Amino acid sequence: MRVLILGGDGYLGWPTALHFSARGHEVSVVDNFSRRRWHTEHGTASLTPIADLDARIAAWHETSGDQIRSYVGAVENGDFLDEVVAETRPEAIIHYGQQPSAPFSMLSRERAVETQHSNVIGNLNLLFSMRDHVPDAHLVKLGTMGEYGQPNIDIEEGYIEIEHNDRKDTLPFPKLPGSLYHCSKVHDSTNIHFACRTWDLRATDLNQGVVYGIETDETADDERLITRFDYDELFGTVLNRFCLQAVIGHPLTVYGTGGQTRGFLNIRDTLACVELAATNPADAGEFRVFNQFTEQFSVLELAELVKGAAEHLDYSVEIQHCDNPRVEKEDHYYNAIHTKLLDLGLKPTLLGEELVESMIHSIERYKGNAIEASIDPHTRWDPSKSPAGRA
Amino acid sequence: MRVLILGGDGYLGWPTALHFSARGHEVSVVDNFSRRRWHTEHGTASLTPIADLDARIAAWHETSGDQIRSYVGAVENGDFLDEVVAETRPEAIIHYGQQPSAPFSMLSRERAVETQHSNVIGNLNLLFSMRDHVPDAHLVKLGTMGEYGQPNIDIEEGYIEIEHNDRKDTLPFPKLPGSLYHCSKVHDSTNIHFACRTWDLRATDLNQGVVYGIETDETADDERLITRFDYDELFGTVLNRFCLQAVIGHPLTVYGTGGQTRGFLNIRDTLACVELAATNPADAGEFRVFNQFTEQFSVLELAELVKGAAEHLDYSVEIQHCDNPRVEKEDHYYNAIHTKLLDLGLKPTLLGEELVESMIHSIERYKGNAIEASIDPHTRWDPSKSPAGRA
Repeated sequence: MRVLILGGDGYLGWPTALHFSARGHEVSVVDNFSRRRWHTEHGTASLTPIADLDARIAAWHETSGDQIRSYVGAVENGDFLDEVVAETRPEAIIHYGQQPSAPFSMLSRERAVETQHSNVIGNLNLLFSMRDHVPDAHLVKLGTMGEYGQPNIDIEEGYIEIEHNDRKDTLPFPKLPGSLYHCSKVHDSTNIHFACRTWDLRATDLNQGVVYGIETDETADDERLITRFDYDELFGTVLNRFCLQAVIGHPLTVYGTGGQTRGFLNIRDTLACVELAATNPADAGEFRVFNQFTEQFSVLELAELVKGAAEHLDYSVEIQHCDNPRVEKEDHYYNAIHTKLLDLGLKPTLLGEELVESMIHSIERYKGNAIEASIDPHTRWDPSKSPAGRA
Repeated sequence: MRVLILGGDGYLGWPTALHFSARGHEVSVVDNFSRRRWHTEHGTASLTPIADLDARIAAWHETSGDQIRSYVGAVENGDFLDEVVAETRPEAIIHYGQQPSAPFSMLSRERAVETQHSNVIGNLNLLFSMRDHVPDAHLVKLGTMGEYGQPNIDIEEGYIEIEHNDRKDTLPFPKLPGSLYHCSKVHDSTNIHFACRTWDLRATDLNQGVVYGIETDETADDERLITRFDYDELFGTVLNRFCLQAVIGHPLTVYGTGGQTRGFLNIRDTLACVELAATNPADAGEFRVFNQFTEQFSVLELAELVKGAAEHLDYSVEIQHCDNPRVEKEDHYYNAIHTKLLDLGLKPTLLGEELVESMIHSIERYKGNAIEASIDPHTRWDPSKSPAGRA
């Protein structure tokens, strides 16, 4: 299968490229390195020492014999993207090429605009390129569980049957996104759904939970192939950050009570899910939505899990409840359905102390790279509210 | 009240500015004349001879004694908008400053991107300017009934109570927008709702039906104050177009069977609704949605109404069913609730032969300006489909 991966230099994009390449697919990647630029601009960096894209691709060729093609450019540039799609004629397009951080999108007007422009316009350009060059290709788009927010009813996979005044319809599940980044992903879903209805495109929106982990089968054995690992307040996700905090002796920063409950999955399961979606494409005209996570946890449960595992490894760990910089519910109902990927054959890698211990061991190798000042949360969802309420 | 009107040079924006000015409010308008530019680029123009903004404002001052301030610039320019909001410190902001045409958004990738960029980024900039300068101001945003599409259930005003697996919540009404323009308005609603939840802003989304009419109380008596009137395939709305077609002897172009049913309202009622919303503001943190239309009609019903009225005035009128250039349902359930504005006191101006005859008389004065070649639909929602089905 010819596979085009947008954002192929990123935390998930790069291991996904190797995963598909290792399985004999013809892989091309697109990236403009904006993720690396954003880190530079904020004085942060990956904990793991990541090679540049050319060096990664050369190392992969050396170790596997397989070629990955790369195209350097921005998906926001429609002419560029159009040329790449026309030249590579992909059968599956895996779209990770977006600004992926909620706090980044809440930093300022400029960063909010950059996030929504990059994400929405990039994705819109892609829909036109598909329509015009590869109308039968399958778009596998990375969405987020954060599109749904925390409604007081069970969260279905993309659609819900609504009975109202004695009539019925199955309609898009209502969305309550929790940041301007999450809003951008809702916008993408709306645009993709429209394109499927109107142009008969085929697409799968993977509403992914929070990803944790470092290693995948293809990146574990050669340091030149390792993927990035972020732990800073902007790009670090919660479990990865807790593990790093435990290793460097920084308190685990729980925002508020830690009652916030979310779906989580291992990075290895991300690759498995994307592969399942790509090898079982949506029908023409179908906009399919899968909720892509394997387990639900509250933030405090994760902090306690990491504390327990780290203490078994003789670390001394403190859990610190800091003022919640976000505007979000800390005590809420949460039950999200996630059976469609299981039905396609996903075998989840479940989270436990052993897995946390192995993450801690991976982190120990690189702990000297940690920039401790980047960890604590400074980006407030509502700058007019002082930590203890309205200013 | 200090009122800031974005898009104050447009079809609805200009009469709205006069309406508020005539009622003693302190009115400022923002426009970058992109609507005039888009017409120039497509070789189309308003049927009515519209004065430029400075001349309009001078004429209004001459006839009413009232001052309207104007700011020329783009809402996509966040720094510009920020300065305008900081300087005018509005209590109500009425946001019409967007690309308003569905077919325009479907012309090409470039036009789709321009539409979503202008609309989404302009609106996002506005939310930040409100947060930072006038957090208690009330945003009155023009949305569209087209955000909902044609679901098989009754369309509520913005929200719907959903009972699911023995739990209940009131959530945003699911959206099935019918063009990339309509998608942009859904994106705006999502962003505004988020801003209200997160920053305690107050906003009213007016999901407006299709507007018809030319004259309002303030624009009728002095030709220098007249608003624009469009009838071309891109910017002309259906009833306005039918009236012009009847006058110039062009067949009334019904897309497909004409069974498409939508909500409609008179331009005078638009002004009344906007005034009702502005003078009855939403609460802090509230994102209120009103369905702003007064009557439902099918496209064919409107064609027959115009044919009847025009024949009474001795015009000979042909109704022509042309291949539908849009991808849309032509036979569908449609029942949209619209009681909230009535509850606030709206007295609808209902459509009938007499009203159509008065529109026809207004059009007769300017029929020499009509550019007949711009009327028939050329913009196809799916260019791969030939008129009789898939190419």
